[in-house]
Amino acid sequence: MHTDYVAALDIGGTKIAGALVDGKGGILARAQRPTPATEDGELIMGAVEEVFGELTADPLWGGAVAVGIGSAGPVDATAGTVSPVNVPGWRGFPLVERVRAVTGGLPVTLVGDGVAIAAAEHWQGAARGHDNALCMVVSTGVGGGLVLGGSLHPGPTGNAGHIGHISVDLDGDLCPCGSRGCVERIASGPNIARWAAGAGWRPGADGDATAAAGAAAAAGGDPVATAAFERAAQALAAGIAATATLVEIDIVVIGGGVGRAGEVLFGPLRRRLRDYATLSFVQGIEVVPATTGTDAGLVGAAAATGLGSSRDDDAAVVG
Amino acid sequence: MHTDYVAALDIGGTKIAGALVDGKGGILARAQRPTPATEDGELIMGAVEEVFGELTADPLWGGAVAVGIGSAGPVDATAGTVSPVNVPGWRGFPLVERVRAVTGGLPVTLVGDGVAIAAAEHWQGAARGHDNALCMVVSTGVGGGLVLGGSLHPGPTGNAGHIGHISVDLDGDLCPCGSRGCVERIASGPNIARWAAGAGWRPGADGDATAAAGAAAAAGGDPVATAAFERAAQALAAGIAATATLVEIDIVVIGGGVGRAGEVLFGPLRRRLRDYATLSFVQGIEVVPATTGTDAGLVGAAAATGLGSSRDDDAAVVG
Repeated sequence: MHTDYVAALDIGGTKIAGALVDGKGGILARAQRPTPATEDGELIMGAVEEVFGELTADPLWGGAVAVGIGSAGPVDATAGTVSPVNVPGWRGFPLVERVRAVTGGLPVTLVGDGVAIAAAEHWQGAARGHDNALCMVVSTGVGGGLVLGGSLHPGPTGNAGHIGHISVDLDGDLCPCGSRGCVERIASGPNIARWAAGAGWRPGADGDATAAAGAAAAAGGDPVATAAFERAAQALAAGIAATATLVEIDIVVIGGGVGRAGEVLFGPLRRRLRDYATLSFVQGIEVVPATTGTDAGLVGAAAATGLGSSRDDDAAVVG
Repeated sequence: MHTDYVAALDIGGTKIAGALVDGKGGILARAQRPTPATEDGELIMGAVEEVFGELTADPLWGGAVAVGIGSAGPVDATAGTVSPVNVPGWRGFPLVERVRAVTGGLPVTLVGDGVAIAAAEHWQGAARGHDNALCMVVSTGVGGGLVLGGSLHPGPTGNAGHIGHISVDLDGDLCPCGSRGCVERIASGPNIARWAAGAGWRPGADGDATAAAGAAAAAGGDPVATAAFERAAQALAAGIAATATLVEIDIVVIGGGVGRAGEVLFGPLRRRLRDYATLSFVQGIEVVPATTGTDAGLVGAAAATGLGSSRDDDAAVVG
């Protein structure tokens, strides 16, 4: 019988979510606050403390043995600090120490949000049973995390898998990160929409010029919208092929708003992947949609603590 | 007292080298044959058998407990086969099974040659003491291998770290591998020489138009030769930054003929790396020349079997 739980915290630019997660990935209690992203660091920490205030008041809190945090990056798991790009009040903020203080000294594991999503997909989602996987979120930004040799690979600082900021076009457009031709600079939702607009695509009567509207237009046969997704697919394919060529992965799981575009994205992506993933050991990469839902960040933050890491044994028994 | 040795085999396009390697990386016996690269598979295997014929005749052979093979890639450690690009007679050749047969059933570990070099540099060379490293060979081709979390990361098939064939220029020149804009397609010796020739560089009185001659010209201030190395450095920087962003590494070790060009390469490489390695967790990457010598392939093949894997303890005692 499992009576141990993990407290999970998911820090994003718009909300701070917390939960108690059990050994099967079930959510037993939850709390949430909007992220006061433009406020100073202590006010943002106040929202975190309110989330933990609710969780620690829960009768189940006594079973919490660890805390897992997945945060918008970059994070620094070595220093225990976070510096989320979209939360300017937190730069090198000592989140681990502060969370330890409000949770009575529980051990705290910190990873980036892409790493958390990978942990969730590996434990509960489409990467389950795969020892070498890249899990991505293609949305307002492009993020990711890696599973290597059967285990989550957060890297020493918790940031590994940052596929959105590898350059696939070394003379390409400047990226806000300072580099050029990053995957995110080409394939994120806003960049797809920008490319489409630049190529002459105009939204319909509703005025919706987002990538989602572009996806609908592409699905309806609009050639410019189709070309915009083709370009994004090309950049994603080059980045995925690079990842597979560097570390050997056999599956790529893609979630996020753009990831939900369906065949408009997955069709050209699988085709382009054949162009870039040419060496024998990367030719068989599977590309599938993510299956974990909106709680993936929480479930993954919990999984990053090692919760559920006996899942391979479980799977063997079940399968 | 150590009495256990490993038999190492280094398969390249021009030579097949074998050795008995001890637990300190010392070479106790060696044998070598030219690679009959254009002959059929059995003739090539004959050369391997001659190498093992010499090694097994050595009085020290009785102490050999395992065999480590580093081979020109691609390899397939899962199937135990090799398909070296420059050895057309071997396509899916069952080298592991054949070597096991001629060594009396010793356990055989197979990795790609880039992985072997990484193992050697981590054990004996410039990556020693680093838990997360990329080791590269920049020469006729561009290869590499990874150390992650303190251990060699060959990947399931033994090919991980293939940085030469990641695309950093998604619309770039077609690479013989079938992809476009690969690091090797821009930064290998022959491609540097080709770029320089295309930009109008002409060799000196000796007629030497190789990258080595170009490096000498660049060191002497020739602007076209300098630009050729600058372009190669840019591609290497983009590839190295991608690797660090994906898996987190703190050191890059570069060997091979082009790697020996010195500041002509390392100067612009370190500068360009600042352009592409922009995220906080990759800004501190160290770039250094390789220090293992011509035996690196043999020593690394031996290390890939796990020989010397107590080196961290040794280092702690020494350091």
